[in-house]
Amino acid sequence: MLDFILPIRSTANAKLEGDIRAHLDDLTKPPGSLGRLEEFALQYCLCRQNRSAEIHVMRLFTFAGDHGITKEGITPYPAEVTRQMVLNMATGGAAVSVMCKTAGIEYSVVDVGVNSVFDPLPGLIIRKVREGTRNFLTMPAMTAAECESAIRVGYELAVSSGADMLGAGEMGIGNSSSASALYSLVLGVDPTQTVGPGTGSSGALLEKKRTAVRTAVAYHRTEWDGSPFDALRRVGGFELAAICGMALGGAAKGIPVVIDGFIASAGALAALLIVPNVRDYLFFSHTSAEPFHREFYTKQSIRPVLDLDMRLGEGTGAVLAMQIIQQSMMCYAKMATFHSAGVSNRE
Amino acid sequence: MLDFILPIRSTANAKLEGDIRAHLDDLTKPPGSLGRLEEFALQYCLCRQNRSAEIHVMRLFTFAGDHGITKEGITPYPAEVTRQMVLNMATGGAAVSVMCKTAGIEYSVVDVGVNSVFDPLPGLIIRKVREGTRNFLTMPAMTAAECESAIRVGYELAVSSGADMLGAGEMGIGNSSSASALYSLVLGVDPTQTVGPGTGSSGALLEKKRTAVRTAVAYHRTEWDGSPFDALRRVGGFELAAICGMALGGAAKGIPVVIDGFIASAGALAALLIVPNVRDYLFFSHTSAEPFHREFYTKQSIRPVLDLDMRLGEGTGAVLAMQIIQQSMMCYAKMATFHSAGVSNRE
Repeated sequence: MLDFILPIRSTANAKLEGDIRAHLDDLTKPPGSLGRLEEFALQYCLCRQNRSAEIHVMRLFTFAGDHGITKEGITPYPAEVTRQMVLNMATGGAAVSVMCKTAGIEYSVVDVGVNSVFDPLPGLIIRKVREGTRNFLTMPAMTAAECESAIRVGYELAVSSGADMLGAGEMGIGNSSSASALYSLVLGVDPTQTVGPGTGSSGALLEKKRTAVRTAVAYHRTEWDGSPFDALRRVGGFELAAICGMALGGAAKGIPVVIDGFIASAGALAALLIVPNVRDYLFFSHTSAEPFHREFYTKQSIRPVLDLDMRLGEGTGAVLAMQIIQQSMMCYAKMATFHSAGVSNRE
Repeated sequence: MLDFILPIRSTANAKLEGDIRAHLDDLTKPPGSLGRLEEFALQYCLCRQNRSAEIHVMRLFTFAGDHGITKEGITPYPAEVTRQMVLNMATGGAAVSVMCKTAGIEYSVVDVGVNSVFDPLPGLIIRKVREGTRNFLTMPAMTAAECESAIRVGYELAVSSGADMLGAGEMGIGNSSSASALYSLVLGVDPTQTVGPGTGSSGALLEKKRTAVRTAVAYHRTEWDGSPFDALRRVGGFELAAICGMALGGAAKGIPVVIDGFIASAGALAALLIVPNVRDYLFFSHTSAEPFHREFYTKQSIRPVLDLDMRLGEGTGAVLAMQIIQQSMMCYAKMATFHSAGVSNRE
């Protein structure tokens, strides 16, 4: 499986890192005073293996898929909302579409597994693997071939994107259950901790969601072959697999990928477990209000860019992080140096 | 003094707030799922007293001034850097200039008290009150008339800006000492806590800075009349006073003002103490790496937008926060509603 994935190398390069840091310190500011923006510029240039990298084209993809687990009645919104929101995204009315337009980010929504047939629409890319996953309560959500196809969708879009920076978000009613199950399975964490309100479950509905995920994880744990790929196909979704693929494809091509929130992070985690070097190419955009997200970051020693209590998904957090990373690279590329501006350096 | 300041009203308006929240909940997203972006949109619309507010024109000003306290040898960079950086800002080579251009924010640097005479330059506004402050170690930095003039500079620029959102930043070698002294004097906090590295003081230089600020605060405490205005003129600077004025002017005109970092916050604090209702109109952009800044926010129950270890000043943090607030208002104004997009709401 996954033999289409090209080698993914660590970005570590002491000579290049020294050059990048020297340039950062030559810019008209006290050394280090742009704080994390300097880290972002360093990571960005290392991903590109280019001390003169610039960001011109930014592209964000929202991957959409439906989930068989919604048959358990564990979501406050009906499953048709996936289809409706895909149309809303493609026609510019969703938060992520509005924000990408404002930020100058090229935007597409990708049907990788929605339970509905779409007419062609600009802004909608149709790469449907299947009309929704199977109900992972009692069987694997995807066959190995389906899961591989969905990974390939994200991988190929990344590789052919022509982008200098990619963003990855998701839409899919039921997918917070899928993400929680995936975190639980691969990290060995009890679903009591990984399951949260998602789009807004509370009370009895949240209990039902917890019970469903707990039952499913217990079942799959006995059948799982221990690989991240098998975990992803058992409890994941088409959009999570596509995000995993985008992370792999971006990394293979040296294009940084900005990961959105709680659900997108679960897809990225699968990629990290498949090829650990992927880590060098990812920016995690924000800490979701979904409670386990903060714990995931702590466990993985990841410091995300933003913390704004967002929990919408779609790619909305990724947009904001991409704007900040863009600014870090604009400073890197366009600021004057002490010498060029005739500014006195430290005494 | 300060009798040019128009009345500044609280933005509280229960009917309007209800309308804004109803609109936010009608947008195609789970209620509250944009997290703090929804708070920002609410605060923005309340400032404008308009449920259909939009942000078109954003303007950011960097106020620059020199400081007599630099004669004590407490800064790692020579005092001429203020003048050099003003030129760098006006000609587009500074971080803040690069970032404003990227963000579509109109930008000017304002000489409100630089110890140097400038030739006219596009992007440079000359409103010099005096060539630098007096050394506040042994005397007030400004006369009352000078301090009032500097406040008026910021006030008038805000009032005449034509902007829908303002940003306020600063440049001035020595001004972290001035800001620390102001925090200490008005909040009654020992300078050991308020003084930090600034642009990069450490070791003996940092000790010298601490000693100078401690000595100055002890002296002024015995002479101070207890008013925020008198504190500002005793230990502040022209750029801090101008930021205080911009906060007051923005508030008087109902234009939100985004405050940059540690030093700009000290100017904003003076405004808050002069007219407490100013608080409704301010957004605090980020937590500076300067240690006391976090404590200031905690004491004042302020939650800033970002936390990126930045400590450059100029307005760089304000730019990033303005982009996020702009995105919150784009979502507010441009997203589809459940009805308009034909998306099913919660069951």
